[in-house]
Amino acid sequence: MTNIKFVNKIYRFREVKGKWVLLEMLIIKNMQSCIDACKECLQACEECFTLCLREADVKSRVNCIEMLRDCVDICELAIGYMSRGSKYAQDICNTCATICDACAKDCEMFQDAHCKKCAEICRRCADECRKMNMAMV
Amino acid sequence: MTNIKFVNKIYRFREVKGKWVLLEMLIIKNMQSCIDACKECLQACEECFTLCLREADVKSRVNCIEMLRDCVDICELAIGYMSRGSKYAQDICNTCATICDACAKDCEMFQDAHCKKCAEICRRCADECRKMNMAMV
Amino acid sequence: MTNIKFVNKIYRFREVKGKWVLLEMLIIKNMQSCIDACKECLQACEECFTLCLREADVKSRVNCIEMLRDCVDICELAIGYMSRGSKYAQDICNTCATICDACAKDCEMFQDAHCKKCAEICRRCADECRKMNMAMV
Amino acid sequence: MTNIKFVNKIYRFREVKGKWVLLEMLIIKNMQSCIDACKECLQACEECFTLCLREADVKSRVNCIEMLRDCVDICELAIGYMSRGSKYAQDICNTCATICDACAKDCEMFQDAHCKKCAEICRRCADECRKMNMAMV
Repeated sequence: MTNIKFVNKIYRFREVKGKWVLLEMLIIKNMQSCIDACKECLQACEECFTLCLREADVKSRVNCIEMLRDCVDICELAIGYMSRGSKYAQDICNTCATICDACAKDCEMFQDAHCKKCAEICRRCADECRKMNMAMV
Repeated sequence: MTNIKFVNKIYRFREVKGKWVLLEMLIIKNMQSCIDACKECLQACEECFTLCLREADVKSRVNCIEMLRDCVDICELAIGYMSRGSKYAQDICNTCATICDACAKDCEMFQDAHCKKCAEICRRCADECRKMNMAMV
Repeated sequence: MTNIKFVNKIYRFREVKGKWVLLEMLIIKNMQSCIDACKECLQACEECFTLCLREADVKSRVNCIEMLRDCVDICELAIGYMSRGSKYAQDICNTCATICDACAKDCEMFQDAHCKKCAEICRRCADECRKMNMAMV
Repeated sequence: MTNIKFVNKIYRFREVKGKWVLLEMLIIKNMQSCIDACKECLQACEECFTLCLREADVKSRVNCIEMLRDCVDICELAIGYMSRGSKYAQDICNTCATICDACAKDCEMFQDAHCKKCAEICRRCADECRKMNMAMV
């Protein structure tokens, strides 16, 4: 946290003025909870991927399995961009929110525990990604 | 290529009509050249990253080094999304074009061979990513 | 957790006998704490990377910055392999332990807060990776 | 290529003596062909992944699909480590060879064009990874 805080201070001080400090704190707070949400989402999608492949109705899960794959990769990217305080973290989180929502929508079609759990975690991750973007506007 | 072609056929036939075939061929053509551009860009940025770290004026290259890092990661993502024919390949290529252009801009500030080469490759990659998106509209 | 548990059960039952159950529980326990350690390490290294680039003695940190880069990438890989219960999770964690230790060694050379914190986290991650491998022997 | 060449020279000169120059050229040659093989393998596995998911006998392809996934990720890692001239490129290529061979073995069980093509490409990639390691001994 303190590192991220420091990283963000560097960026803010370079670009803007003291009146931004409040907004900055908001960004930092959102950033860590967004990083945590992406970490949780990445793992839930990997687990759900392995389990969907073993379900009796795997044939009806092709889109879901592909969405889980896409969701893992974009969450991984978002974690990296946010953790190192990239200028493009917002853009990535924006796309991450879209893909997490799409992944949740596909998981919600299935009744098993892992898809239900994964859908919830994807929705929460999408919300965190959107919140972070609003804070950064 | 034939695999990607097949993959895209699957998607087209599911969503649209025969009159799309021409557009589809265009997509496929663009997709492989875009994948190749991203592969080249990823490697050029990794090489440029290692060499920038060893330049005498490394202090003035901090932003460039960070952009190279971001560019590697988004190119990696784009290669994966396109190669498996993801529905979200366009969105990723869109962001990839933005980040490749920003990376080229930073590399163009320096006169050494590796930054000049990397900037050219980043611009070409950005163009390929935009072309692919136009084809997919 | 329950997903991972289930995933691991699938693999154990496929390969081995009932007397392995105890060992299996150990693996699962270790696996989640190893995944968590890799997630923490990945973020600490990304943060330390950004901050090392801004230190006055950046020239003397080239190896450290490169190690941080390698460490981020292998932790990311290990998180994915473990989360989806890959047969090769052990091999990856083995290499991950080696690279985390090397990264810690480089970070320990510097006195700033972020390198000290990062070194500790890398050591803990290396230990978790080794523990997981022992459990899986 | 010239960048990689340069990168490797940096490392050699730092650690060893002039008599290494010949070996070094060998490393460089192998490194670029190994990077290319990993790039080709990564794409072939992503394509094969998408197509295996759509085969009538998808249930019998679960292990193959999981191997393809692991193979994509380790090839991605190897490309990055080699491209930036990491000290750990050998270790990663070693593991990459093991996983590419395992992936080829699974793909060889199926008669469709994409699995046959993918198996060949995985074998070639495994050979390149082993050759690079020999050169670096």
